[in-house]
Amino acid sequence: MLFHVRMDVRLPADMPEHQAAELKKTEKEMAQSLQQNGKWRHLWRIAGQYANISIFDVGSIDELHTTISALPLFPYMQIEVMPLCRHPSSIRTDDR
Amino acid sequence: MLFHVRMDVRLPADMPEHQAAELKKTEKEMAQSLQQNGKWRHLWRIAGQYANISIFDVGSIDELHTTISALPLFPYMQIEVMPLCRHPSSIRTDDR
Amino acid sequence: MLFHVRMDVRLPADMPEHQAAELKKTEKEMAQSLQQNGKWRHLWRIAGQYANISIFDVGSIDELHTTISALPLFPYMQIEVMPLCRHPSSIRTDDR
Amino acid sequence: MLFHVRMDVRLPADMPEHQAAELKKTEKEMAQSLQQNGKWRHLWRIAGQYANISIFDVGSIDELHTTISALPLFPYMQIEVMPLCRHPSSIRTDDR
Amino acid sequence: MLFHVRMDVRLPADMPEHQAAELKKTEKEMAQSLQQNGKWRHLWRIAGQYANISIFDVGSIDELHTTISALPLFPYMQIEVMPLCRHPSSIRTDDR
Amino acid sequence: MLFHVRMDVRLPADMPEHQAAELKKTEKEMAQSLQQNGKWRHLWRIAGQYANISIFDVGSIDELHTTISALPLFPYMQIEVMPLCRHPSSIRTDDR
Amino acid sequence: MLFHVRMDVRLPADMPEHQAAELKKTEKEMAQSLQQNGKWRHLWRIAGQYANISIFDVGSIDELHTTISALPLFPYMQIEVMPLCRHPSSIRTDDR
Amino acid sequence: MLFHVRMDVRLPADMPEHQAAELKKTEKEMAQSLQQNGKWRHLWRIAGQYANISIFDVGSIDELHTTISALPLFPYMQIEVMPLCRHPSSIRTDDR
Amino acid sequence: MLFHVRMDVRLPADMPEHQAAELKKTEKEMAQSLQQNGKWRHLWRIAGQYANISIFDVGSIDELHTTISALPLFPYMQIEVMPLCRHPSSIRTDDR
Amino acid sequence: MLFHVRMDVRLPADMPEHQAAELKKTEKEMAQSLQQNGKWRHLWRIAGQYANISIFDVGSIDELHTTISALPLFPYMQIEVMPLCRHPSSIRTDDR
Repeated sequence: MLFHVRMDVRLPADMPEHQAAELKKTEKEMAQSLQQNGKWRHLWRIAGQYANISIFDVGSIDELHTTISALPLFPYMQIEVMPLCRHPSSIRTDDR
Repeated sequence: MLFHVRMDVRLPADMPEHQAAELKKTEKEMAQSLQQNGKWRHLWRIAGQYANISIFDVGSIDELHTTISALPLFPYMQIEVMPLCRHPSSIRTDDR
Repeated sequence: MLFHVRMDVRLPADMPEHQAAELKKTEKEMAQSLQQNGKWRHLWRIAGQYANISIFDVGSIDELHTTISALPLFPYMQIEVMPLCRHPSSIRTDDR
Repeated sequence: MLFHVRMDVRLPADMPEHQAAELKKTEKEMAQSLQQNGKWRHLWRIAGQYANISIFDVGSIDELHTTISALPLFPYMQIEVMPLCRHPSSIRTDDR
Repeated sequence: MLFHVRMDVRLPADMPEHQAAELKKTEKEMAQSLQQNGKWRHLWRIAGQYANISIFDVGSIDELHTTISALPLFPYMQIEVMPLCRHPSSIRTDDR
Repeated sequence: MLFHVRMDVRLPADMPEHQAAELKKTEKEMAQSLQQNGKWRHLWRIAGQYANISIFDVGSIDELHTTISALPLFPYMQIEVMPLCRHPSSIRTDDR
Repeated sequence: MLFHVRMDVRLPADMPEHQAAELKKTEKEMAQSLQQNGKWRHLWRIAGQYANISIFDVGSIDELHTTISALPLFPYMQIEVMPLCRHPSSIRTDDR
Repeated sequence: MLFHVRMDVRLPADMPEHQAAELKKTEKEMAQSLQQNGKWRHLWRIAGQYANISIFDVGSIDELHTTISALPLFPYMQIEVMPLCRHPSSIRTDDR
Repeated sequence: MLFHVRMDVRLPADMPEHQAAELKKTEKEMAQSLQQNGKWRHLWRIAGQYANISIFDVGSIDELHTTISALPLFPYMQIEVMPLCRHPSSIRTDDR
Repeated sequence: MLFHVRMDVRLPADMPEHQAAELKKTEKEMAQSLQQNGKWRHLWRIAGQYANISIFDVGSIDELHTTISALPLFPYMQIEVMPLCRHPSSIRTDDR
């Protein structure tokens, strides 16, 4: 099932650069792994912002929360979740 | 190029049912035609709301506006647009 | 799976009383039927407001949307949905 | 009587990890004790957020405040309280 | 127990004057009766607005809702409720 | 004349405990003294929050500001003020 | 004593023009009369909006409310009131 | 020409007291000098807040910005500006 | 001097089409005339919305208000105005 | 294609002055270079605020994001982006 997730990243101004770099590197690896196994279906950058729009395709709400809260940047993100369902006018069978 | 569009529909309470039905029928036909030619890339219903999340893939901002403002429900929708770009962690070559 | 739903009802001031009464009667019947089959798990009135807090327990997001949008008061309600999951400190096995 | 409580936790970025862990451990013990004696009737995690939705069943408003403000995470939480009452369409006698 | 209630009145612009006058007259009678029996403990006008701040002293949340929703202006009011409790610095024994 | 004042306290997370205790002790003494001389007419805790609702009865707006800004917690409070006046439906002669 | 008042006018779209003209004419006469006797000390138009910023100098909060609520446009205005007091850096003895 | 300016001061909690005192002293001198030459026409304290409402009378928008941004507290203020013009009902020739 | 103006148009749903067409035609003529004489320096459509961003270059705030409030769509627009000034990093001598 | 960008700068209160000066100097150089090559078409200061309104003219959304996120002040700015298109009433051929 699909969830629309918006993530806004707010790193503390005094976080050492190597710590930020390490966090982002791990975040990227996890994001790519989750894309490869189909859980993180879409990932876009919002232009001009340190923020993204994501579509997750997970088996349960618990899996959604476990996945998001395990991201290394989770403590530094403001997150909004909206459940999505198939639109009656959609022609794509996989946009369920 | 990609745009994230949220549309909230607010039909007037006193609109005759047949007029609403006619508007929705034409809206659906246009939405499906735009999906078929690739302009309206994704279309999801936000659960519990008369609203959708859409991803448009158009050649210019003018094309985006012309497309959206030609929808029959346009006068009855509140619309928010956000430009999207490729996320550095994305592995999908077409989520540009 | 569980969803937290807040519904605020706004009936048009000029709706005839018998129409409002009919809508509310059907709404009540559907609400009670959905409670009986376990889909609408909790239903509370927010004190001082024509609004409720509900917990739905449904099999999919599509079922959630179909259920809510079939309510007779749906066109007159402002609705907010939040997906819920089990809290690590919860001791109730059914508050999954 | 029932109160709907939403708690959003915001731990300071520079809180030492062992202090956070200690706070959370005590919070969990108190939350479970309050659930066992029926004061904290429901406790759900809001998916994707460090936040919960809770239903308290207490004997007075003073008891509600004393209970919430004694939680170890209270100084780090943003809290919203709404009084609930029985909904005329509810079929559950204990959702009073 | 005490509740802080703010009521903002919004009468429809096309309500006939005699209907508005009738509603206000009945509202006033009920408000005064509720003050006399101690349920509506304080009632102040917010300067410059068609709105009031009220303190209700009722036996239960259900009584609060029943009382407020029975007011003739209820369908035309936006209402916010906050539960109050005794402040540790208060010297008044009845501001419980 | 009467003013409705809401005070939300936000102490910095790194304020030493003894400093906070000292501030609160002085605040309490001043609050009680102002209640005794009738300037601070009502003082309630908002349930679940480090916040209060107060009714001040002062001789002028300047006196209101001088009184509030002299409170030891003033630099750490977010404050909203609304002027109140007698409600035409009030039966209490002192709720002027 | 001084109050800062912002008034935003929202006339119903279907109000007959002569009724609007009549209301505005009476409003203007009252506004000028109140300026002449010093109650309405300043009156400015907010550029680009059907709204004004006003400074009232009245003897009591009740007088403020009576004055504002007697304006013919009162039912069609959204109004915000802020009590003002002398600023310690002010050099004008009448900006009390 | 006239501008309505609201300034909310937010000094950092850890600013040394002598630095705050120095800033406020210079701010006061500049505010009084600007009042004397007529640029800062009115200056009021908003009751209960560390904030003011000001009316500036300057020759250009650039002069407004240069004046405001030169204030020593500028880096610690949240500022809102609204252009004002003569109100058709105003009787004061200098409230242009 | 320059002002940044955002205009959001909200025509009543029941306005006859010919009246809307007439209003828009006159609006367009005035907008073009004001652009030709340099008062309305820039005019852009916000994509996906019945709204525009405009830059006005006028001699006074009064001229700004007179110009905007004379537009035929003025009664149906929500308008926000921000005064602009030359940016120290600008290289354009006419973006004063 | 054109984008309307609002940037609000929030430098941390404890940033050393030479670091702030260095950041601003580099920011200015980049802003001027981008203006010279036509990417940053307009740049205005919002009066009374450490904020600007900018019009960017770029070849793609990716270019917009790359340009904005490369600015030295990017980590300290809150940024809002709106896509613009030609207004049907515009007479300027380059305000496309």
